[in-house]
Amino acid sequence: MVYFEKDSVYQSAREWVLAAGEIIRSTIDDPREVDTKKNANDLVTEMDRKVEAYFAEKIRTTYPDHLILSEEGFGDQVDDLKGTVWIIDPIDGTMNFVHQKRTFAISLAIFHQGIGEIGFIYDVMADIIYEVKKGEGAYKNGQKLAPLTDKKNLSESILMLNHLWCTPNDQVNHLKLGELVRTVRGARSYGSAALEFAYLSEGIVDAYISFHLQPWDYAAGVILYEEVGGQIVQATGEPLTYLKQEPTVAGHPNIVNQIIEDYIELK
Amino acid sequence: MVYFEKDSVYQSAREWVLAAGEIIRSTIDDPREVDTKKNANDLVTEMDRKVEAYFAEKIRTTYPDHLILSEEGFGDQVDDLKGTVWIIDPIDGTMNFVHQKRTFAISLAIFHQGIGEIGFIYDVMADIIYEVKKGEGAYKNGQKLAPLTDKKNLSESILMLNHLWCTPNDQVNHLKLGELVRTVRGARSYGSAALEFAYLSEGIVDAYISFHLQPWDYAAGVILYEEVGGQIVQATGEPLTYLKQEPTVAGHPNIVNQIIEDYIELK
Repeated sequence: MVYFEKDSVYQSAREWVLAAGEIIRSTIDDPREVDTKKNANDLVTEMDRKVEAYFAEKIRTTYPDHLILSEEGFGDQVDDLKGTVWIIDPIDGTMNFVHQKRTFAISLAIFHQGIGEIGFIYDVMADIIYEVKKGEGAYKNGQKLAPLTDKKNLSESILMLNHLWCTPNDQVNHLKLGELVRTVRGARSYGSAALEFAYLSEGIVDAYISFHLQPWDYAAGVILYEEVGGQIVQATGEPLTYLKQEPTVAGHPNIVNQIIEDYIELK
Repeated sequence: MVYFEKDSVYQSAREWVLAAGEIIRSTIDDPREVDTKKNANDLVTEMDRKVEAYFAEKIRTTYPDHLILSEEGFGDQVDDLKGTVWIIDPIDGTMNFVHQKRTFAISLAIFHQGIGEIGFIYDVMADIIYEVKKGEGAYKNGQKLAPLTDKKNLSESILMLNHLWCTPNDQVNHLKLGELVRTVRGARSYGSAALEFAYLSEGIVDAYISFHLQPWDYAAGVILYEEVGGQIVQATGEPLTYLKQEPTVAGHPNIVNQIIEDYIELK
């Protein structure tokens, strides 16, 4: 069995997250080259690669037996969550990074033997760090996040989703999601899945739906949100695998099943 | 002709906006009663009324010949913009105020003889004040906002709109707006029209569409955004009247007409 010294790994990870944030902040106004990935709106920057390379170098040097699952190609081929796996998104919300120079985050999760043990979501420009050690509380800049409220009705909930899912698409029946939008109290879209999980964990929004999240988009967010009582599953109702792109529903436990059963028709 | 001492009015207004913000901040965690207005999701709080009453008292005492156009009932019957008119939203983004305790704003505009001369948008919890004196520059916390970029393509734009407009509704053809959502680079929704105008003015988003904005939702935002080169019109292409609810399109001047002509079909 792989040895896992949780506190020590936590401290290393925390230090590297803050240092990576400083690298980003110190160069935020530099001219930048923006590439596109699968499609014109799937952006990637030199900074995404640089930050991921930074983490990869640190992890491989300090924890040579740990694996890395990440977005920009510096990670490993990860087929299961045995041993210790770091799941990293160097810049979650790259479009915000490019267009807004704010409202993006470093997302870092550490799994050990299949369990999400450690999570960080770092809102770099606001210098706000959300962090969690499983079973020991979720924190925002050192302040413990309260458990979710006891009760939540769908009609008094704020939902986050990309507007695209309310338009004809090949993943889900958009008409049913339109009904959901008209059922909830309000809808929001912020452009960073990791921060959207952080906002869920603060209890300022109540549900989040996405149909193309990768593990690095949600891994840290799930650990954080579960710590305060949030529920996160695949849109089929099955547990997340953390290994591939998955339609994801997160929310207050009072409303997740209702959303899945009444409003989500996968294609 | 009514005498209008712009600098003096500006200083008074600025002082009152900051003081009102302090009133809100100092009681943000107090228990609160939330009422609903026209429908269950149109919230109003005691704080909306309290802040509006604060402005009304100050204005009536200091400038007894000025008129007030405002949301919560402390204003005047305003049928035109003759003389000096203060247009006030005490809390723009009441749903955010109630659910999130952040990302709401005080919006205050001052028109003189039909011209928007002064505007403030105050993000109360972040303590960020956006302010403008027409012709003298737009500022964010004392830093002058740059003019909008020379060029902007729709396909590289970020659009803000409420998800509702992408679902069947009685105002506009939602299918065309769905096409627009799929044409732009990304869509966002933040839940405060005033702040959304502020973000436009910072150049971090490029267009905003709404079909039920009241003058107090957009009056300050329009003055701010026009100062950096933004364009704001009714969804018919006609100028805003500032006197009634109007379907509104705001954006970089390169894309506003294209949005109206190709994607907005009013019902």
